Amino acid sequence: MIVVKIGGGAGITAESYANFAEDFATLGQLAVLVHGGNAEFSQLSKDLGRPPRMVTNEKGRVSRYTDSETIDMMLMAYAGKVNKHIVARFQQAGVNAVGLSGIDGRIATGKRKSTIRVIEDGKPKVLRDDHAGTIQQVDTTLIRLLLDAGYLPVLTPPALAVEEGTPINVDGDKLSLELAIDLGAEAIYFFSDTPGLLADKDDESTLIRTIDVTDPEAALESAQGRMKVKVESAIKAIERGVGKVVFADARADRPLQRALAGEGTVIGLGLGS
Amino acid sequence: MIVVKIGGGAGITAESYANFAEDFATLGQLAVLVHGGNAEFSQLSKDLGRPPRMVTNEKGRVSRYTDSETIDMMLMAYAGKVNKHIVARFQQAGVNAVGLSGIDGRIATGKRKSTIRVIEDGKPKVLRDDHAGTIQQVDTTLIRLLLDAGYLPVLTPPALAVEEGTPINVDGDKLSLELAIDLGAEAIYFFSDTPGLLADKDDESTLIRTIDVTDPEAALESAQGRMKVKVESAIKAIERGVGKVVFADARADRPLQRALAGEGTVIGLGLGS
Repeated sequence: MIVVKIGGGAGITAESYANFAEDFATLGQLAVLVHGGNAEFSQLSKDLGRPPRMVTNEKGRVSRYTDSETIDMMLMAYAGKVNKHIVARFQQAGVNAVGLSGIDGRIATGKRKSTIRVIEDGKPKVLRDDHAGTIQQVDTTLIRLLLDAGYLPVLTPPALAVEEGTPINVDGDKLSLELAIDLGAEAIYFFSDTPGLLADKDDESTLIRTIDVTDPEAALESAQGRMKVKVESAIKAIERGVGKVVFADARADRPLQRALAGEGTVIGLGLGS
Repeated sequence: MIVVKIGGGAGITAESYANFAEDFATLGQLAVLVHGGNAEFSQLSKDLGRPPRMVTNEKGRVSRYTDSETIDMMLMAYAGKVNKHIVARFQQAGVNAVGLSGIDGRIATGKRKSTIRVIEDGKPKVLRDDHAGTIQQVDTTLIRLLLDAGYLPVLTPPALAVEEGTPINVDGDKLSLELAIDLGAEAIYFFSDTPGLLADKDDESTLIRTIDVTDPEAALESAQGRMKVKVESAIKAIERGVGKVVFADARADRPLQRALAGEGTVIGLGLGS
């Protein structure tokens, strides 16, 4: 069983989803699919005259402020448009897909941080009505039921703050990792609009083929910038039982087949370097 | 097993959904929930500067023209915002709800009418890129799997045109009826922002309590205007094995409990009149 995450960047189009659908249909790989929807989300925000409001917290971390209207736009883009178009495409290819959010069947639940402290124009501020959150628990009962019955679960954020009965904005990569850990996945594949992890992010020829995390500290030291977070997450996932973590290209023809054959960046134990 | 359809009119609010959630939690009724989303859909269309384009076909039937952008707005409103807010509300009340569209698991599939002939400004026209359709088949395998495992399936249009891999706009009431027939439901309850079927649509005191369809022709003759279509559908559903069809008030406190106790308009066999 593998977990496949398809990013929501602008470079990932309807054609990309069709490529994945064909691949899944041919390979018959037992999998859980997780997808993003950021490009659609940003477009919808713009079209509705509500561009993203980026805020910086006291630790310097930049995130999007998620008020009620923003979480609704997220539901519309991720769980509405993107999720159902992917499922429709997979159904067309003969794969019996079922689209779900983290809210459904309590797959991903967590705590809502309704108040956040941010720095805006150099001044500290308190923002209320936030719907950002963190995943505290994943429950894969529903996913296992669907897998056992031959369905392909297609998952998307948001998650659920159970007590308040409200959706919360959580990170799709984090959701994928937690699912992979809970399901004891052989591997997790992160597909985005790059060939994998790049030593120089502006140069696709600098693709890193493998990262051996037998020595986690050395592996982390070799990673730069945004890559560091990804390698760190990968190390944690492997420590918690996931076989390997792969970063691969969503834009390729036969993307899954290529990644299964070893293309992209493979992070695991005892790979050499 | 019953099918409960909650309409998507403007009179049905977050509070209504919370009322239903409480009712389902208390009653533990085995059910499939279907919902609409028309008010949210219309609002989104307006906010995006794409108000509904109503067209009249050659038979005089008025419908909304559903181009690609319109079906995307429908996905966003119905399968995104409304579906997930309902599921979140039910989860909060302790009901393990799972939100799905007709696309997921091929629950509702049909044929897309990509070209429609309409009369606009008195002239015949052909409109292309339409995503309206009709349900040709329902497959309740996924719904039965979920029911057997203790989940409450929460269904919404659109449906799926399998061959083309595209969502199609289908009527939510029709979807509910087809599901009820396929599942052999004891009853189907249509909740909307009226107390039931009214002899005079502007006067809630003219509620019709029962319609006996032992003599279908007499029953049909007693119905006026838009009601005729509803009574006709009810008769067909009963002929195809559904126990009874009830039209009830979604705005009430404890809406399901009241309807189960006999409030609203009950259509069935041998009821007297």
